Amino acid sequence: MAPVRTIAQQLAAKQREISVAEFFERNRQILGFDNLQRALLTSVKECLDNALDACEDARVLPEVQVEISKEGEERYRLTVTDNGPGILRREIPNVFARLLYGSRFHENRQARGQQGIGVSAAVLYANLTTGRPVRVVSKVEEEEVAHVLELAIDTQKNQPRVVSEDLSVWDRPSGTRVELVLKARYVRGRQSPFEYLRATAIVNPHARIVLTEPDGTRVTFERATTELPPAARETAPHPYGLELGELGYYLRSSKRPTVLEFLTKDLQGVSARTSREVVAAAGVKGTEPPGSVVGESQERLVRALHEAPLLAPSAEGLSPIGAMLIKRGLRNVLGELKPEFFAPPVSRPPKVRGGFPFMVEVGLVYGGGLPADQPIQVLRFANRVPLLFQQGACAITNAIANIDWRRYGLDQKGGSGLPIGPAVVLVHVASTKVPFTSEAKEAVAEDPEIDKELTLALQSAARHLRTHISRKSRRAFADEKFQIILKILPKLAEKTSGLVGKPVPDLTPVVTRIMDVVNLEAPVVTDPTGVRVSVQITNYTPRARVLELFVELPPEALRGATLEPAAEGSEPELGRAWWTLPKLSPNGRTVVTLSFPPKTDLDASDLDWYVAGIDEAHLLGADPLPGDWDVRLPRTIVEAAELAATEAAAGSAEETEVDYDAAEASAHASDED
Amino acid sequence: MAPVRTIAQQLAAKQREISVAEFFERNRQILGFDNLQRALLTSVKECLDNALDACEDARVLPEVQVEISKEGEERYRLTVTDNGPGILRREIPNVFARLLYGSRFHENRQARGQQGIGVSAAVLYANLTTGRPVRVVSKVEEEEVAHVLELAIDTQKNQPRVVSEDLSVWDRPSGTRVELVLKARYVRGRQSPFEYLRATAIVNPHARIVLTEPDGTRVTFERATTELPPAARETAPHPYGLELGELGYYLRSSKRPTVLEFLTKDLQGVSARTSREVVAAAGVKGTEPPGSVVGESQERLVRALHEAPLLAPSAEGLSPIGAMLIKRGLRNVLGELKPEFFAPPVSRPPKVRGGFPFMVEVGLVYGGGLPADQPIQVLRFANRVPLLFQQGACAITNAIANIDWRRYGLDQKGGSGLPIGPAVVLVHVASTKVPFTSEAKEAVAEDPEIDKELTLALQSAARHLRTHISRKSRRAFADEKFQIILKILPKLAEKTSGLVGKPVPDLTPVVTRIMDVVNLEAPVVTDPTGVRVSVQITNYTPRARVLELFVELPPEALRGATLEPAAEGSEPELGRAWWTLPKLSPNGRTVVTLSFPPKTDLDASDLDWYVAGIDEAHLLGADPLPGDWDVRLPRTIVEAAELAATEAAAGSAEETEVDYDAAEASAHASDED
Repeated sequence: MAPVRTIAQQLAAKQREISVAEFFERNRQILGFDNLQRALLTSVKECLDNALDACEDARVLPEVQVEISKEGEERYRLTVTDNGPGILRREIPNVFARLLYGSRFHENRQARGQQGIGVSAAVLYANLTTGRPVRVVSKVEEEEVAHVLELAIDTQKNQPRVVSEDLSVWDRPSGTRVELVLKARYVRGRQSPFEYLRATAIVNPHARIVLTEPDGTRVTFERATTELPPAARETAPHPYGLELGELGYYLRSSKRPTVLEFLTKDLQGVSARTSREVVAAAGVKGTEPPGSVVGESQERLVRALHEAPLLAPSAEGLSPIGAMLIKRGLRNVLGELKPEFFAPPVSRPPKVRGGFPFMVEVGLVYGGGLPADQPIQVLRFANRVPLLFQQGACAITNAIANIDWRRYGLDQKGGSGLPIGPAVVLVHVASTKVPFTSEAKEAVAEDPEIDKELTLALQSAARHLRTHISRKSRRAFADEKFQIILKILPKLAEKTSGLVGKPVPDLTPVVTRIMDVVNLEAPVVTDPTGVRVSVQITNYTPRARVLELFVELPPEALRGATLEPAAEGSEPELGRAWWTLPKLSPNGRTVVTLSFPPKTDLDASDLDWYVAGIDEAHLLGADPLPGDWDVRLPRTIVEAAELAATEAAAGSAEETEVDYDAAEASAHASDED
Repeated sequence: MAPVRTIAQQLAAKQREISVAEFFERNRQILGFDNLQRALLTSVKECLDNALDACEDARVLPEVQVEISKEGEERYRLTVTDNGPGILRREIPNVFARLLYGSRFHENRQARGQQGIGVSAAVLYANLTTGRPVRVVSKVEEEEVAHVLELAIDTQKNQPRVVSEDLSVWDRPSGTRVELVLKARYVRGRQSPFEYLRATAIVNPHARIVLTEPDGTRVTFERATTELPPAARETAPHPYGLELGELGYYLRSSKRPTVLEFLTKDLQGVSARTSREVVAAAGVKGTEPPGSVVGESQERLVRALHEAPLLAPSAEGLSPIGAMLIKRGLRNVLGELKPEFFAPPVSRPPKVRGGFPFMVEVGLVYGGGLPADQPIQVLRFANRVPLLFQQGACAITNAIANIDWRRYGLDQKGGSGLPIGPAVVLVHVASTKVPFTSEAKEAVAEDPEIDKELTLALQSAARHLRTHISRKSRRAFADEKFQIILKILPKLAEKTSGLVGKPVPDLTPVVTRIMDVVNLEAPVVTDPTGVRVSVQITNYTPRARVLELFVELPPEALRGATLEPAAEGSEPELGRAWWTLPKLSPNGRTVVTLSFPPKTDLDASDLDWYVAGIDEAHLLGADPLPGDWDVRLPRTIVEAAELAATEAAAGSAEETEVDYDAAEASAHASDED
């Protein structure tokens, strides 16, 4: 007779280990395999991430083929081929058929794959849903032939199982091809493989990606540059935000002979001087080996490090997109919609959370054909990877929703939530360790440090938006005034003059008195002979003006430009040039022309115009020169000051002060005839 | 000299295994340890889930103490003590200091913990942030003393490390205490331990939970019932939605002698007859052992199972909250706000996804003191566990946002998103395997099957809301009419009668002609002597009426009630009673009184009133009797029909058809005097 077991014994009998593969087999939604559409996208994503990471590791311009073909009902074959360095035979099984295995997890540098789960998750899903192994072909440069392996995952052990193995000739120096058959649904449009690849191309303009769809349609995302992004270098962890347990791990595994060397060489941002102060503050012996710091001294050491004056984190581990590519990327993706305004992209300096550096980049466009009555569109990226799912769970979305966009000119119910308006916001979070909310890597987790940077970057872009919108409304207001003053007033004058039989009076004094602005217009004209910007500056003020004009544009554009008249000064490396304009009488106008070679990629938003010599309130279509321009203002300011003094003392022909009341009185007089 | 290594070799050298503990140490945000506030809440949650699960496994009424005390700056001690069955000494280290280890992962029944990660994650976080081990005290009934262990996790191996061990006397038959010291922030209010425990108490009214806050404040969530929820029984997987790989696993691990037995006994919902059909359709030999079905026959078998007519899934593996407790829970949590309307809670029948049964329950309340200008409040639960974070990522929220609530009487911008209005929606998803978006178990992943059930349940609750709102507006409209007719009309009549020196005419015919409704009012009056509902039924129609009145209320309330007059019939087990009312003349009124003992927990929304014998269009304050009431309608219908026939033929004193035009004409005549 079996003994009666107590509850505790019964429960204990059920306890057992769970393999990580088993865990994810039962929780595949965590890996991004919620449904058939997303399963295909996630598989594409994991294979593509691997391909791009491998190419960048080898400093090769990526050339990736993604092919999706139908194998049956709800069954597709996905083949991803890259020109990367290939994978050694002995590593292939672990790389593709074992979860939590990889080369980037323990590194401290920006990469797409960081978890050691990605592509094996796709293999797990394919195994589970179709019972088919993954087929991997990989060739490394030093071998003549490629290895061809078919692999499955033994989920109860989380170990690869080699189903078949062969060698084959592959006429390329190196590369990898992955072939998966999986249960899936193919869609176009929103959250499709096409959208994913297009978004990837935006932030990876050095990659050439070819997509072959199930119906044979082939789409090529051509590379826009042959320059590889700067390599993200392996960096040491920064002590800021490092937890006790992590410091303990680094101390134990350090190979440095002393604590002082550990502090300055295994960590980032600790100078020799600071290391001595830290050691003193913590009451730790700097000459002892790092492993000797345990228990309470470890606690004191971490506290001393957190309170020490550390150097700013290095950006070497990061590979940001950069302002130029953000702008270009947005322009590409929006194409036909032609936004009227591109805010200067914002790149925040690197910060640290939990020892890992990160940085935030933001781009914002507005107007044009973008829908005005819908929530703004948000393009989210993490380490150059587009995030298409779980928008609602993402710290990026939350940071946007927590800003009161009404202050910046967008509509927003109750001052929180996604604002309504014709805008697109692109946000990139780059880090040596992006904190995702799950292994599916689709949403950035809430983190106070990241949130702060996101908010600052977004607010900075939003301020530009506000300036644009208020300038636009000032412009609209001024245009209305122009309509009335420049068209109706002369007609009125003509009519009344005719009636009273007197010559039409010169309206300039009245017009300038009412307008009282200097107006700048800078339309960009593109035709086969080239791109031309003719800047018209008109003085609608009642005084003569000596003004200086400044322009800032992409440096490479300025290099190819012809300026008429020639610039008085320039800083080509910053893309800046300036002119002192001829003295402008009231109603006087002058034109400066910039001509660029045909096919120059330039639109109005690429040119920033500034005018010095007049108060901001009297300037339309340009900004006053920002304070951070370190430009010598040769004559303008001095001359303008002198001019003003002269005017005040006497008066010249051009600056006749007009007696508006008198003019009005005469108009009344005419009426009475 | 070392040989030059190729890129592939360099990359290969970096490849290595990642322990699951290491993985989560670096990605603790995935486990719900994003920030200091949430870290504390997640730790409370994991310890409490374990305690409640253990008690329910042992069929013990849970009695849990949660104590949080301050240990230093950003450092708290969390102690959770339960009266569960205790844990055997040999299992303690694995249960608390090893990730992916547990008793419930491989079971197919509803439980809070299913992943084998929970409490060990809290231990991992405590180890990491304060370097302190977890202290576990556990006593099982069969031993005299408790085991006291201090445990840490060796993250590189994902193995428990016993730091110290002791025995101690504990004066309770069995139980477990867990003590953690962790870096955290204590808050009150939103997303606080208090809110979590309160929400837990709503859906676990059988548990008694005592919270001691860092300042010594003690809050007791007293149990509202001594009845344990029905035990969730281990059930076999249902073939619907089962993937090929999963079927393969079950086939391989089956101990049944034949495929046919495997189908009927290891799976759920397959009858003997269906099993023979399935085997035939798949071309598989039913008498062979299950393990013999491999490769293509496995594929055919899974397809045949998906297409077979299977029995509905059993609800035995599930433990729903139930309509009564949903209503009571909502009333508790809303307390002072006193909503005016409680929709009858919706409990959908169980369905299956991926072989796992699940069901959806929904409660909805409206009005009262709830804020009308804010998004509705959503209370999310999964397996009786409150979900406080990641609302935006949750399938529950999405299902709510995808319903066009404008059709149901709430405000909603553009017909999607969280609606605006004075409402609270409670949603519970119960499953033997809830698909969470991450290991933090804070959001339910998108799943087409779950989404469908959520939508149906929500729409069903929403329809009740619409009925309520439209009834309310009809009521308001009728009230306005009442105001005019019952107050102004008599005054008018009095005045005009005075003027013409005639007696005030009987206005009943005019009033009933204009109103033409039977009105029911049923205010609930609570005072120290008891709770009383006096239902007034007034006949504002121009005909005499024979009506029958029905009430439905909680059965236990009906059992204690005194009815005046006595009910004509009742079904006590369903909480139903009915009366045939005395014949009501136009303007006639009758009252039925229900009296309950003092402290009966009852409000107006607990009583549903129905009236038979009159068309719905002429009924205010009650509904027509629903078709599913299997009540014999003794005389009413027959008599009413007879009465109608008599009236049609002749006419009686009470049912005088009034000539409204004549009355009006006489009024006009008076005017002319």
